[in-house]
Amino acid sequence: MAHTIAVIAGDGIGTEVMPEGIRALEAAAKRFALDLEFTIFEFGSCDYYLEHGQMMPDDWFEQLKDFDALFYGAVGWPEKVPDHISLWGSLIQFRRRFDQYVNLRPCKLMPGIESPLAGRKPGDIDFYVVRENTEGEYSSIGGKMFEGTEREVVIQETVMSRTGVDRVLKYAFDLAQSRPRQKLTSATKSNGISITMPYWDERVAEMAKAYPDVAVDKFHIDILTANFVLHPDWFDVVVGSNLFGDILSDLGPACTGTIGVAPSANINPEGNFPSLFEPVHGSAPDIAGKGIANPIGQIWSGAMMLEHLGHADAAQAIVDAIEAVLAEGDMKVLTRDVGGQGTTESLGRAIAAKI
Amino acid sequence: MAHTIAVIAGDGIGTEVMPEGIRALEAAAKRFALDLEFTIFEFGSCDYYLEHGQMMPDDWFEQLKDFDALFYGAVGWPEKVPDHISLWGSLIQFRRRFDQYVNLRPCKLMPGIESPLAGRKPGDIDFYVVRENTEGEYSSIGGKMFEGTEREVVIQETVMSRTGVDRVLKYAFDLAQSRPRQKLTSATKSNGISITMPYWDERVAEMAKAYPDVAVDKFHIDILTANFVLHPDWFDVVVGSNLFGDILSDLGPACTGTIGVAPSANINPEGNFPSLFEPVHGSAPDIAGKGIANPIGQIWSGAMMLEHLGHADAAQAIVDAIEAVLAEGDMKVLTRDVGGQGTTESLGRAIAAKI
Ligand SMILES: CC(C)[C@H](C(=O)O)[C@@H](O)C(=O)O
Ligand SMILES: CC(C)[C@H](C(=O)O)[C@@H](O)C(=O)O
Repeated sequence: MAHTIAVIAGDGIGTEVMPEGIRALEAAAKRFALDLEFTIFEFGSCDYYLEHGQMMPDDWFEQLKDFDALFYGAVGWPEKVPDHISLWGSLIQFRRRFDQYVNLRPCKLMPGIESPLAGRKPGDIDFYVVRENTEGEYSSIGGKMFEGTEREVVIQETVMSRTGVDRVLKYAFDLAQSRPRQKLTSATKSNGISITMPYWDERVAEMAKAYPDVAVDKFHIDILTANFVLHPDWFDVVVGSNLFGDILSDLGPACTGTIGVAPSANINPEGNFPSLFEPVHGSAPDIAGKGIANPIGQIWSGAMMLEHLGHADAAQAIVDAIEAVLAEGDMKVLTRDVGGQGTTESLGRAIAAKI
Repeated sequence: MAHTIAVIAGDGIGTEVMPEGIRALEAAAKRFALDLEFTIFEFGSCDYYLEHGQMMPDDWFEQLKDFDALFYGAVGWPEKVPDHISLWGSLIQFRRRFDQYVNLRPCKLMPGIESPLAGRKPGDIDFYVVRENTEGEYSSIGGKMFEGTEREVVIQETVMSRTGVDRVLKYAFDLAQSRPRQKLTSATKSNGISITMPYWDERVAEMAKAYPDVAVDKFHIDILTANFVLHPDWFDVVVGSNLFGDILSDLGPACTGTIGVAPSANINPEGNFPSLFEPVHGSAPDIAGKGIANPIGQIWSGAMMLEHLGHADAAQAIVDAIEAVLAEGDMKVLTRDVGGQGTTESLGRAIAAKI
């Protein structure tokens, strides 16, 4: 049976790494006899916005909702369209309307990639960030008053619901329970953000009762970011609100030296709607058009997609291929960010060949 | 003329590092013939709360408002009093009622302290975080509805005012202009936090017009935390909202290996109310009572206080003494966090002796 996959490459390097993501998926499909059916969409990019005055057509939801998954590049090009318009008109809509309430991001020190942290080796850092992905600080309520005057004031509301908090916590606790270390760290800021964050803490404490095997701790987000740098080996599963998860899932990959390599999954665990798979990196206008972007984030996201679609073996083959190519360390193949002189395509082809 | 200084040691290691902070200040006062008059206050601690049911007496504002400065340790002991109660009942009141709208925190790689970042040497990292300190995400508006039911929802409002944003930006731009590199980086998240953060960006762009000499850039907070780890040498003055500044001013010191050493100043630039000087570290209940806390954060905060009171030479003498003792690297003197076997007192005495 075919898996239907909607492809949205977006902007900047999104359009450059996407072909390599597809190349790797096709190689895996061939090897494991999977039937993957890709449908390419042009909308969801800043160029589409410039032409149509909106990021997506009115019926985007109808067009996409029956796909098995969305394979997504990167969106945003601030010189063409302000970020809050391009992102709220695309990615954030998907997450919210398709109720992809879990954003899952592995942080793993890979062979052949140098960590910016002194003395850390592969195996030392290996954790997941689980991020709430639909509510919290990314709210659409608020506004501006006394605009243009000295009294100007802007307000934006953080909204957390019991449903929204509990379901992502449940996912994170389940994940922690399934891993050997069975450890969960909660990101909070209940000493400063005095209403929503104490509530978050309360729900974590409540959920913890149902998971006696899982060791739970919590840190305020300020010292937690410090501990990512000082003690990355402390962490197994880290769960955070929309904003805190966002921060930690960029910082974590940075600590593993793999910001251009990190993948992510935006998951609707119930499968009511398609889940979305995208690299952690953005559209990177500064290096776009040069063919030097690292495609591994996109390719690895494809592996997460296959795993989500029930093909753990094919997913593992892709991850193994990535690790093998990195470990080989061929300068002519690797992209610059990981110390090579190769191109997006040379690295993508090498990984596909390994698969 | 005497400078009157209110001393609040607070909780945990706050009470252990404070005597060393005062010892250093007294040494500097002796050498530079300054008249410093310390008044010790018992309130503002969790023990005070347990006895009185509130963190401070009703007339705390009257008692403190005419001092020239507040010298502050650390507050919080979650097993005794929830953090949001202890902090909102003390530190956050000071910042807000005394209108200490600038929180200034140096991040500097010091001699003799090992950075957790590979290959970084003293001189490589030397920047300031300027944090908005009275409004933003640390709001007191919001609440809970449908409490105790499945429909439970909590809301907290982020509030930014033009007055509040502009005045801290002005301080940051002035600081950037006065430094050799003349560079300012703004922390934003305008791609996700769609109302307040685009407003912050707008005000930065507006303020930048008055500072043609200052080179301005901005990063979203997620990638900015990554860049603190990957490229700490990029930064000169970094300005952020209350929450973002909080995060960056723990992460920055972590990158310099000096989380126990970093100082901070909560400044009312107009001098209408006393400014407050405190170490960046918290009360650290886990190591409290052992006499092993590093007192340098407290001592360095004292130096910032002297500078604020107009004694730049005395301030410099304290910083020089800190650097000299660290560079000597005497294991018997240094505390554990910086690789020694000494105590809070041995390190404090060594620095005072150098002054
Ligand atoms: C203790 C806490 C409320 C405080 C803050 O978040 O402001 C602290 O982290 C700081 O940075 O001074
Ligand atoms: C582009 C932006 C809105 C997005 C986010 O903040 O969620 C990105 O940083 C991410 O982490 O996927």
